[in-house]
Formats: sequence, C-alpha cells, structure tokens
Amino acid sequence: MIAPKIVSYSTLSVINILKTPTSWAWVEQALSHLDIILLDHSHCERKAAGVAMNLMFRYPSNTKLVRQLTAIAREELEHFELVNQWLEHRGISLAPLSSPPYGGCLKAQIRRNEPERLLDSLLVCGLIEARSHERLGLLATHCPQPELAKFYGSLMASEARHYGVYWILADTYFDRDVVNERLEELAIRESEILSTLYPEPRIHS
Amino acid sequence: MIAPKIVSYSTLSVINILKTPTSWAWVEQALSHLDIILLDHSHCERKAAGVAMNLMFRYPSNTKLVRQLTAIAREELEHFELVNQWLEHRGISLAPLSSPPYGGCLKAQIRRNEPERLLDSLLVCGLIEARSHERLGLLATHCPQPELAKFYGSLMASEARHYGVYWILADTYFDRDVVNERLEELAIRESEILSTLYPEPRIHS
Repeated sequence: MIAPKIVSYSTLSVINILKTPTSWAWVEQALSHLDIILLDHSHCERKAAGVAMNLMFRYPSNTKLVRQLTAIAREELEHFELVNQWLEHRGISLAPLSSPPYGGCLKAQIRRNEPERLLDSLLVCGLIEARSHERLGLLATHCPQPELAKFYGSLMASEARHYGVYWILADTYFDRDVVNERLEELAIRESEILSTLYPEPRIHS
Repeated sequence: MIAPKIVSYSTLSVINILKTPTSWAWVEQALSHLDIILLDHSHCERKAAGVAMNLMFRYPSNTKLVRQLTAIAREELEHFELVNQWLEHRGISLAPLSSPPYGGCLKAQIRRNEPERLLDSLLVCGLIEARSHERLGLLATHCPQPELAKFYGSLMASEARHYGVYWILADTYFDRDVVNERLEELAIRESEILSTLYPEPRIHS
C-alpha cells in the first residue's frame, strides 16, 4: 500500500526553515492510523486556536499582533470544524488523546522574561505551523484515500501562511538579526525533538 | 442629548430571564463614554471567545458542546474584529482596561465539582450573553450616533442567540428542572451584582 520509500515534499520556502525533513517512519505510522491522526489533528487545530487566543490575551495592546492572530484563530476554528466533520463522517468520537512531547518540549524553550517571551512564543508557533504544513503535505501526497488526501492538501497552504504571519510579527517587533538567530536555535531544537519517533501516531509524533 | 428617562427595551424572551432591567444610570454613563464602552466591548468579545474556547478545552468529548461553542467562538472573534475596526476608525488604541466586578463575581458562583461545574458554567455564560443582548439593545436604541447605534443593533441578535445556545446545552446535559432552578438562583445573583453601578463605564458596569 505504501509505495515510495523516499519522502518527497513540496519545496515551498516555508519548509526550508525546518532543519530536518520528516522521516518516512512517521509517514508509515500516520498512514497506518489515519483515524487517530484525524482525531489528533482535531485537537491540534483546537490547540492552535487556543494558543493564538492566549497570545492575543497576553498582548492586547499590540494592534498588529491582535489583528493577525484574530484571523489565525478564526481560521484554526474553521479547520477544527472541518476536521470534526471528517471525524463524524467516519464515526470517530471526539475523545481525549495523550499529547506527544513535541508541544511541551517546544514550549519549554520559550524564555520567561519579556521581550524574549514574545519573540520565542511567535517563533515556536511559526515552527509548529511550518512542521504542520510539511506533514499535512506528506499526508496529501501519500494518503491512499483520495478525498482525505485532497482535504489535507486544502489545509496545508493555510499552515504555510500562518508560519509567514508569525514570522512577520516577530520581524515587526524585533530586529531581523535577532529573529533569525533565535529561529535558527529553535529550529534545531524542533528537529531534535522529532528525531525520535513518538510511539503513538500523532501529527507531531 | 439623553432624552428618555425610562429605559425601554426589546421584550424578546431572552430578556425575561434577567431579574432586573438595566438602570437608566448605566445608559447615561455608557452614552457619556462611548469610546471607553467600545474599548471595553472589544475586550468583552475577546473574553467571550476565550470562555467558549476554554469550555471546549475542558469538555473535548462532548460533541454537541464542542460544535456549538466552536460556532460561538468564531462569531465572537468576528465581532471582536468588527469592534476593533470601530476602534481604529475612531482612533482609539487597543489598551488594557480594568474589568468591573461582574465577570469575577459571576465566575465565583460556579461550583467546583462536576457535573455542577458544567451546568453553572453554561448558565453563567448564558446570563452574560442575555445581559449583553439587553445592553447592546439599549445602546442601539439610545446611542445618538446613528452608525454606531446601527452597529449595536446588528450585534444584539447574536447575543440573544448565544444565550439560547448556552441554555440548550444546559438542557442537553441536565434535567430541565435542575437547569431552571439553578438559572433562577444565578439570575438573582446576576442582578444583585449589577444593582450597584460600577463607577467606571463598562458594558457590564
């Protein structure tokens, strides 16, 4: 069923910031557990909306940030609804699912004092969006169920756009050199976290 | 400028659950500080989206709740954007604003153990929506600036609908007698909280 052994993915610039491409082992794991991946994806969209909302709450006076993140939160909620329609369609109940270490490990990289906290928060969000873009792209390419593959394809562009928004916000509030240096550090850490495949199938396993 | 001394408001059924109508003193206070009311309104819409999101996070397996609250959160974010456009149009910066005691006092009524916590959370959210509906209606009726009055009029129907959604969710997960009895208690407390006008102009002062 799973033919190609070499991961091929779009060469969109957003993926260039990821230090290591996703392993084929992840693709196999995901394709073997599409229902769990869909359920986890639902949780991911909800969490992404929640994170954007939390940033809006933490920086309510940063007009540009609030405006951009409102749009992102709305779009994540729209995707959350779409994924939930897929769950319903496939008879999968909304149920809690343990999280892989990915989000927690990345969150632990966020420095606690401002303004570093804002910079790191934006870049961590951006990296998660970039990785999501890459992985949804892999699902779009390799998922053997055409309708589901098409669905993943329809979402992956938004993830890339969201990465761009987070990067632009970082670039708005910080010097570009500072942004790029920190992004480099966090991107290395992000790839390290994913270097060991989490045994449970997840979008970020 | 402020002509009528008797508060007149829509007799929509949603307002019937409020134990005491809003005082004319509030209307005068609000109309005298429309810019602050707009800024507070922006915070209210953001908080309402946040509360709906938090409930979705707390009860991720309650499919009906998640579906309905996703729609509410999306709509609150849309209103948040619309109010922010008004702020921008009037040259009002997004700035933090102290909250009146209303939200905190109502939150304190929520019992800590399940399933009471869910019931109280839904009913408190519903009451806040009902009060918001009443007060936006008062602004729509009495605001001397026609465009702004029209804007408030365009939002008030959603607040009534949101009240209905929270009530239906309560009625979905709990016996109707239990819902109505607790709603009665909370509605009495809600009106008590507002019986003293908060000195700062707010949507819920």
